Amino acid sequence: MLVVIADYQVLTDRETATHLDEHVLGLIADHLAAGIDPDEATIFTHSAIAALNQLLLPLLSLVTVPELQRNPTVKDEITHSGRSSVSGLMFTYPAHQAADILFCKANLVPVGQDQLPHLELTRTLARRFNERHAPLFAEPDALLSAAPLLLGTDGTKMSKSRGNAIALRADADETARLIRGAKTDSQRHITYEPDSRPEVASLLRLAALCTGTDPHTLAADIGPGGAAELKRVVTEAVNEHLAPLRAARQNYAADQAGLRRILTEGNHRATEIAETTLQQVRAAMGTTYSASPSR
Amino acid sequence: MLVVIADYQVLTDRETATHLDEHVLGLIADHLAAGIDPDEATIFTHSAIAALNQLLLPLLSLVTVPELQRNPTVKDEITHSGRSSVSGLMFTYPAHQAADILFCKANLVPVGQDQLPHLELTRTLARRFNERHAPLFAEPDALLSAAPLLLGTDGTKMSKSRGNAIALRADADETARLIRGAKTDSQRHITYEPDSRPEVASLLRLAALCTGTDPHTLAADIGPGGAAELKRVVTEAVNEHLAPLRAARQNYAADQAGLRRILTEGNHRATEIAETTLQQVRAAMGTTYSASPSR
Repeated sequence: MLVVIADYQVLTDRETATHLDEHVLGLIADHLAAGIDPDEATIFTHSAIAALNQLLLPLLSLVTVPELQRNPTVKDEITHSGRSSVSGLMFTYPAHQAADILFCKANLVPVGQDQLPHLELTRTLARRFNERHAPLFAEPDALLSAAPLLLGTDGTKMSKSRGNAIALRADADETARLIRGAKTDSQRHITYEPDSRPEVASLLRLAALCTGTDPHTLAADIGPGGAAELKRVVTEAVNEHLAPLRAARQNYAADQAGLRRILTEGNHRATEIAETTLQQVRAAMGTTYSASPSR
Repeated sequence: MLVVIADYQVLTDRETATHLDEHVLGLIADHLAAGIDPDEATIFTHSAIAALNQLLLPLLSLVTVPELQRNPTVKDEITHSGRSSVSGLMFTYPAHQAADILFCKANLVPVGQDQLPHLELTRTLARRFNERHAPLFAEPDALLSAAPLLLGTDGTKMSKSRGNAIALRADADETARLIRGAKTDSQRHITYEPDSRPEVASLLRLAALCTGTDPHTLAADIGPGGAAELKRVVTEAVNEHLAPLRAARQNYAADQAGLRRILTEGNHRATEIAETTLQQVRAAMGTTYSASPSR
């Protein structure tokens, strides 16, 4: 298992990135708390892996500008950013994501539903590389979870930068506050109808995931209790489910030197993998000219 | 002095690149024959320098999509390619050229007139990086030669891929044939008028450069001799001027192992430079998180 901390992505939607160090180490603590074993998995920041980033260039040669323009996730991010023009990095981000996936020849990529177009582009680029140069990449498959789409508490796409996500680092009170302000709808009686009541359905799904139940059952239980009861149930379910993970996270986060060591080790391993793949890519493209086999 | 062999550029305007190896070694032979001393200069292929290629990503974050679209050289290449859409690599090429220049903190870049917009973008990106992150890059200056614009023999932009360039590897007969087919105009009398007679003026400039004379004087000498005499003069001037360089080139080209050694050495040196710059860029951007100072 390889876990990418996509630290260059902050540059796609923000002008400056402060406290990057804190966010990166915090993400590693999140992953460890969620059960990722650093001895089994390689956790790395993509900005540290030069050979991975170089793969962006051959992959960009395999995609046209209109194809990049059509990517729905990029379109959505452009709309959300509220800017009239986006950076070249945002524009080419789907190809960079393909590099994140292909550098280690990933076979399975856990994604949310909104990331499916990115994965489809990765599959296309793998296919095109194989056809044009040499068969090097398998087409990776998507791994969708039981909840491929969970909305943010404001009813839009969940995103850390939109402040509508429930963080593992948040405490029970913060979580309660965020859920109390969650968007629902004007219907009194709680029902599970994903199409017509997406915000209520998303909250029900969240509580069901945390308690190992079913959103239909949960809706029937709450029923006339309305939004207030729904939010109480969700808050309790989330806080109870996350309590042990949050305790573990605190321990991991307290050991900053340990987190840095895990990242250093992960970056070393990812670099080795990326350099091997890059050498194969160079050989396939015929760009290995020099005397030594290593360049 | 650093000399980049821009081997990824073939991917921007061609679907497949065959005999890349031959072209790259041939270009190195060209440079050596032209007087570049491989002990003084670092000759490298940019595809071999991962840390250089990674710089594309931070640079792409500093340029907008409309800015990339406005680049006149890219526009021209798009028109010339005759395709309705261009690849992502072609689209982002100006930012990659900026990486080629900035990775070694170049202060002076010898360019043709058509490359000035690219250099201007490089200066802009250097400035923006310094403002947003930390003052790291000097703004490089252009070094225009005595002939900042020399047309191809068909009167359009000179380019190897358009078959309108006089190659160092070509022999005297091929050169004569290419110049015999050069585009001139319908006026009998030869005069040096760059604005109204660009093709004739370009041929006069070429002969003047080769003989160390002045295009006005040359035009006056040829005068009533017309296009035929002009082409005879140009052919003789080019072939005489290039004869010793061509002989030297043959010697260099005969030693393929030597050329490969020069490239290997150059790639090693360029990698060291690029890795130093990339570490500075990571520090400036705050993307150095791990325990070891080297990652």
